[in-house]
Amino acid sequence: MQTADVKEWQEQKETLRIETFSDGVFCIAVTLLSIEIGVEVKEGMNNNDLLHALWEKWPICLAYVISFVNVLLAWVGHHGLFKHLHKTSHAVMIANGLLLMLVALVPFPTKTLGLFLQSNALKTAVIFYTGYFVLISLAFRLLWRAASKNKDLLVRRMTDEHIKQVTRMENTGLICNTVIMAVAFASPWAALALSFAMWVYWIVKG
Amino acid sequence: MQTADVKEWQEQKETLRIETFSDGVFCIAVTLLSIEIGVEVKEGMNNNDLLHALWEKWPICLAYVISFVNVLLAWVGHHGLFKHLHKTSHAVMIANGLLLMLVALVPFPTKTLGLFLQSNALKTAVIFYTGYFVLISLAFRLLWRAASKNKDLLVRRMTDEHIKQVTRMENTGLICNTVIMAVAFASPWAALALSFAMWVYWIVKG
Amino acid sequence: MQTADVKEWQEQKETLRIETFSDGVFCIAVTLLSIEIGVEVKEGMNNNDLLHALWEKWPICLAYVISFVNVLLAWVGHHGLFKHLHKTSHAVMIANGLLLMLVALVPFPTKTLGLFLQSNALKTAVIFYTGYFVLISLAFRLLWRAASKNKDLLVRRMTDEHIKQVTRMENTGLICNTVIMAVAFASPWAALALSFAMWVYWIVKG
Amino acid sequence: MQTADVKEWQEQKETLRIETFSDGVFCIAVTLLSIEIGVEVKEGMNNNDLLHALWEKWPICLAYVISFVNVLLAWVGHHGLFKHLHKTSHAVMIANGLLLMLVALVPFPTKTLGLFLQSNALKTAVIFYTGYFVLISLAFRLLWRAASKNKDLLVRRMTDEHIKQVTRMENTGLICNTVIMAVAFASPWAALALSFAMWVYWIVKG
Repeated sequence: MQTADVKEWQEQKETLRIETFSDGVFCIAVTLLSIEIGVEVKEGMNNNDLLHALWEKWPICLAYVISFVNVLLAWVGHHGLFKHLHKTSHAVMIANGLLLMLVALVPFPTKTLGLFLQSNALKTAVIFYTGYFVLISLAFRLLWRAASKNKDLLVRRMTDEHIKQVTRMENTGLICNTVIMAVAFASPWAALALSFAMWVYWIVKG
Repeated sequence: MQTADVKEWQEQKETLRIETFSDGVFCIAVTLLSIEIGVEVKEGMNNNDLLHALWEKWPICLAYVISFVNVLLAWVGHHGLFKHLHKTSHAVMIANGLLLMLVALVPFPTKTLGLFLQSNALKTAVIFYTGYFVLISLAFRLLWRAASKNKDLLVRRMTDEHIKQVTRMENTGLICNTVIMAVAFASPWAALALSFAMWVYWIVKG
Repeated sequence: MQTADVKEWQEQKETLRIETFSDGVFCIAVTLLSIEIGVEVKEGMNNNDLLHALWEKWPICLAYVISFVNVLLAWVGHHGLFKHLHKTSHAVMIANGLLLMLVALVPFPTKTLGLFLQSNALKTAVIFYTGYFVLISLAFRLLWRAASKNKDLLVRRMTDEHIKQVTRMENTGLICNTVIMAVAFASPWAALALSFAMWVYWIVKG
Repeated sequence: MQTADVKEWQEQKETLRIETFSDGVFCIAVTLLSIEIGVEVKEGMNNNDLLHALWEKWPICLAYVISFVNVLLAWVGHHGLFKHLHKTSHAVMIANGLLLMLVALVPFPTKTLGLFLQSNALKTAVIFYTGYFVLISLAFRLLWRAASKNKDLLVRRMTDEHIKQVTRMENTGLICNTVIMAVAFASPWAALALSFAMWVYWIVKG
């Protein structure tokens, strides 16, 4: 190998390493979500009591499902973004660290959503949850900005048109999440339904 | 490398990445199972009291062992399935996401089984637990359907006979798990014994 | 590549995958140990109270350190063992699964040791802890037996002398751990001191 | 490949494996930090009550952010250090094990900091936290000493000047953390502000 090749290979290895670490954070965040879910034992519970207790766990299970899908989509998005990079910069690493910090804390808004879904504090819980994903979208937007403003970081085959397309996609994600949060102020359930509709669209359209 | 080779290599890398992420979820789910298991300190406990307290943990330890084996077998099955794929589709990724969501939540039915194994709610706990693994079998069946209906995704050396064989295996797993759940309605302990017999068969026959 | 080469490469990839999964379990088990350690907030605590509360955590911290070292040594041993394998068998996978199941549950005896180190139940706690590592040694011995009885699994350069040497090492580990447990029946602190002496020996001799 | 190449390749694989395991510990430690953060449900909470309860979580969230950044910087430092190694020694493995043991326990000082940030025990909490990172700096310094005292372990292109430069960097880190801890004895908030200033410097200067 020539010196230039060695250097490029090392840069790619570096990028891969950051991607692997990020994958680990996504993977653990998504699996840790389940830790909170469980039924408490009370003395003298019979089969019907347990059935009832399990059934009452639906809000936290729903919150788990919503967050699992959201984090999985974020993982797919993160991977899609890193596919365009062949090396990283200081700014990319900082933006990526910010994103990971938010992803690792997803269990917090998830628990809050699950615990207050049937309470009088539903609106605050949904605004907090949807607002949290606005922050995640912002971190994604920041990461892409750090990556795209320096063309040296991008893979060679990427055209200006392609860059603009990714930018548009990141902006769309940010706008969608902001709209969902805005809707939550008016109607929390409508906001959750809108989230769900977005996934169905993504699943059907691909 | 020629363009066609590069493309194939990238698709394989993509498949590998999804497999690695899935491995991570299996690995964490299996290790998190142990978090719940522990003895509470009470004042003035002596050696015999602790021995007694440890002994009383057998139901949760049994549930842990059962789930560990089940998730490990699911991991082997997942790996066996992905060995036949050389690239993935949108449908495969969604089915795989569904499977991972279920695997990551295995600690919930495991805890329920462990906590209620000696209670009057035993039947509900076993039906919930065995029913949960019916869902996992269904997700596997769905994943294999998404993979096998598009022959482009499968590795080239796979014959129609081989595809049918895998389908049969997935169906057998689904049927076995459904039978175990059905038995649980009549006798929870018989259902657990049946699970155990299936493993022994798998260990001996290989 | 020729067909024989492809097959060998696939077998090695398979072995690597099992090793990576095992590494994951070791890695998570070792990190999860820390989850339990924390100080409870009581109202009106001042700087001295907190200092005192932190100091009182030394038994659980000691148990953490002991388990961290033990699991790390087990990881090194596991890796040393897999270095001799170039493919795996059904029996190896089952023995490895058993070992991982025990490793993933190490937080349970660790917590027990930490919580009862200063109590009247010290002896039971230490016997349980040291006995648990006898089980882990047994699982290692079983894994090596499954690997070494079929010479096809071992890397080609391994001589009979080398195989006997590894067997001796596994046996020594099992005997040492059994002796430590036996000592715990007479004196728990002597058993812990013996553990510690073994590490120092290992660190100095290498 | 010739025998010498094979040996070198194996040593590099070995180093990579230790690095991957270490990455896993960093990755899990950083993600586990979030487990403690959550709001308790009380009966009859309305939207304002939840908003208030979420707001009151700021100290633990601040502690989370501080630790996330610290562990991420430690990961970057760890990686920077291992980039200079092409094989490992017994001493390097022991120093690395010590470092990982400390990193895996970071959730303990983090919790302590978060829980006592608004209490009368603030000073003890900040001294404990900053003192803990002095220990981590010491472990880094030890690791680098074990690596640099044996030139066979270092990559060939590394000059004496470069080695001295890394030593200076490790010493600077250790001194900075010690100063921060010393400041905490006088004023805990000044110590936290100093930490923050160090990050800003690192982010701006790169």
